[in-house]
Formats: sequence, C-alpha cells, structure tokens
Amino acid sequence: MNTKKRIIIVGASGTMGQFLANVLEKENHDIVRVSKTSGELQVDTTSTKSIQEMFEKVGEFDALISTAGPTFVGPWKNLNDQTFRTGVEGKMMGQINLVLIGQHYIKPNGSFTLITGALTHEPQLHFANASAANGAVEGFVRAAAIELGNGIRINAVSPTVIENSPQYFPYFPGEIPTTMKQLEFGFKKSLFGTVTGQIIEP
Amino acid sequence: MNTKKRIIIVGASGTMGQFLANVLEKENHDIVRVSKTSGELQVDTTSTKSIQEMFEKVGEFDALISTAGPTFVGPWKNLNDQTFRTGVEGKMMGQINLVLIGQHYIKPNGSFTLITGALTHEPQLHFANASAANGAVEGFVRAAAIELGNGIRINAVSPTVIENSPQYFPYFPGEIPTTMKQLEFGFKKSLFGTVTGQIIEP
Repeated sequence: MNTKKRIIIVGASGTMGQFLANVLEKENHDIVRVSKTSGELQVDTTSTKSIQEMFEKVGEFDALISTAGPTFVGPWKNLNDQTFRTGVEGKMMGQINLVLIGQHYIKPNGSFTLITGALTHEPQLHFANASAANGAVEGFVRAAAIELGNGIRINAVSPTVIENSPQYFPYFPGEIPTTMKQLEFGFKKSLFGTVTGQIIEP
Repeated sequence: MNTKKRIIIVGASGTMGQFLANVLEKENHDIVRVSKTSGELQVDTTSTKSIQEMFEKVGEFDALISTAGPTFVGPWKNLNDQTFRTGVEGKMMGQINLVLIGQHYIKPNGSFTLITGALTHEPQLHFANASAANGAVEGFVRAAAIELGNGIRINAVSPTVIENSPQYFPYFPGEIPTTMKQLEFGFKKSLFGTVTGQIIEP
C-alpha cells in the first residue's frame, strides 16, 4: 500500500524526529534528515531564506514532516512580548513558512504534517506560549487545506507529553503520555492516508 | 446586578466597538473609547510602548474589551511571511500584549475579553491569516486563564460574520450572520459573568 516516498523530516535530531526517521527508513522510505545544527541538511526555520535554500538543496520530495517547535517555557511573570517571540518565530511562523515556501517545491499529491500538541486545548502552567503557537498552527492547517492546490494535503499531529520525554512529565499532571507507537500512527495517518485539514490526536 | 464598571474598549471606532460602547454606556458604565486614530485615546497595538502609555493615561479600570483585529485578507498566492505579519502583529500579538501589559494595570477581579472568530474552526478562502491569529488568541486565552492572578478573568468572543458588516457576507457562504444582539450578549457573558478561559460563541 505505502509506496516508497521521499520524506523530509525537519527536526530530525529531536526525540520525535529521530524516532520517526528510523521507523520510516526501515519501511524503505527515502528520508531527508533536516535539523537546525546537525543532520544531512541544516535549516534555520526562523529564516525564510534558510528555508528556501533547504528546499533548493533537497529537490523533489513527496512529503514533509515537521517536529520542530521551539517555544518559551517558563514562569508567567517572564512572559512578555520578547519571550513570546520564541514560539511565534519558532513553532508558529517556522512551520507556517515551511508550508508557504514548500508548496512551491513539493510534488503534486504531496503532504505536509506539522506538530502541535494538547496544550492548544489543555493548558498547563509555564506553557502559554506553546498553547498560542499550537492554536495558530492548527488554525492555519485547517485554512491551508482548502487553499493548497495540486492535491497537496496538510495535517497536524497533536500529542500530549510523549513517553520518551519523561523530563516533562511533572509539567503535565494527570496527562497520560502519548506512546511513541501512537505518535508513529498519527504521522502515518497523515502521510499515507487521504485526510487533509485535520488535527490528528494520536 | 451589573454594578457600574469602568471599561476600556480597544477598537472603539469599529463596527463592533462602536456598538458595544453605545450599549454599555446606556447601561451607565464608564466607557473609555480607544482606537488607532480616533476616540478619546489612541493606541497602536503593534507597539508595546504605545500600549503601556495608553494604560498609564487611563488609570484604574475594571475591564478591557478588544474588538481590534487586523489581519491579511487576500488570495492565497499573496500569503507569505510578510503579509502573514499583519495578523501576527495585529490580531494576535496586539491583543496578547494588551493582556500581558494590562494585567499590571487592571483592578483585582477585572476581566479581559478579546475577539477571535469562527474562522478558527471554519476556514474560508482568503482568510488563512485570520484563522491562524484567532487560533493563537484562543490558545492564549485558555492558558492565561490559569496563570492570571488577583481573580482576573479572560475570555474571547468568537462570532461568525456579523450582521452589520454585509460587505463580508460573500466571503462566508452558508454562514448565518451573528446578530449584534448575540454579539452584545457574548461580551456581557464575559464582562458580567464568572467564566474564564472560555471561547464564547454568541
């Protein structure tokens, strides 16, 4: 069923990115690992120039997965216009620009899969910046789905705290962690399914 | 029941702001009309300095209503990092900064009521920027509600196209317009009720 695809993973050196890259590579897909400072290719997603250069280097591809989502995490009293920009430029505009620019490079019937998170609807102390960035990306995904041409699809995967990041468990009281298998299935639903404009809660 | 309140309305010269200012003033509340270029006071919500100066001039207040939400409206092909900034700086960070700064000026048990819109979940062609900005504000509202101290509440009102703006009807096929009365009730629920962290669909 799942014919071989050329898949860009932005955030490939992170916990989720590494995991997904390995899983998909074992299933014989051609993975292009992109990270900020390591991987085959580097990209600074806060720079539209850097994003464009990355796509120029990659050439043709069928799908892009992003697991790259820097946000400001810290006490509310430290949240201000400046600290808020971490999430605005990182998780929000970084991912949105991957799509706005990447749409001109991706193959017809390709797919974009971005990362958001349960914080959109289930806030936690210290994470207001992520709640806002997630909400923006989710609104964008629904809107982009009705605008993108050439059969190109777009979805987001929205896990809660993931099981391989136990350092975050104390910040998410009462949240049952998303397993890596659930995360994998969430991304596969977007990659190999036909859905578009969906926020997939794996 | 509704004891007299001093209410700042940011966006007071717009269709919604004018309407709400008149309704609340008739009910004997003390309204401070704030707009970008008219009104009693001016504020440029894209400038934290301008926002701070506005609060310094206003002094004590019980509630802030924002109906100010500039976004980029136009064809998808014209949506890029630059045009996207209209909504990022305007409807998103403009409103978020009104809260992050205003929390230091508002009276205990005061309330913030921001504006989002149905586009968060019901996208329309040409409005992806608003969908993203709305989503960001809604995520922020839910998160801020668990962080704000001193009994301060925060909500958003999310109408669809409003009946007094028929020029937008063609962009919202099949949407039953929100009446001005519904809009009024939505804002009153936030102003005079006890809810917080809610997205009120009037």
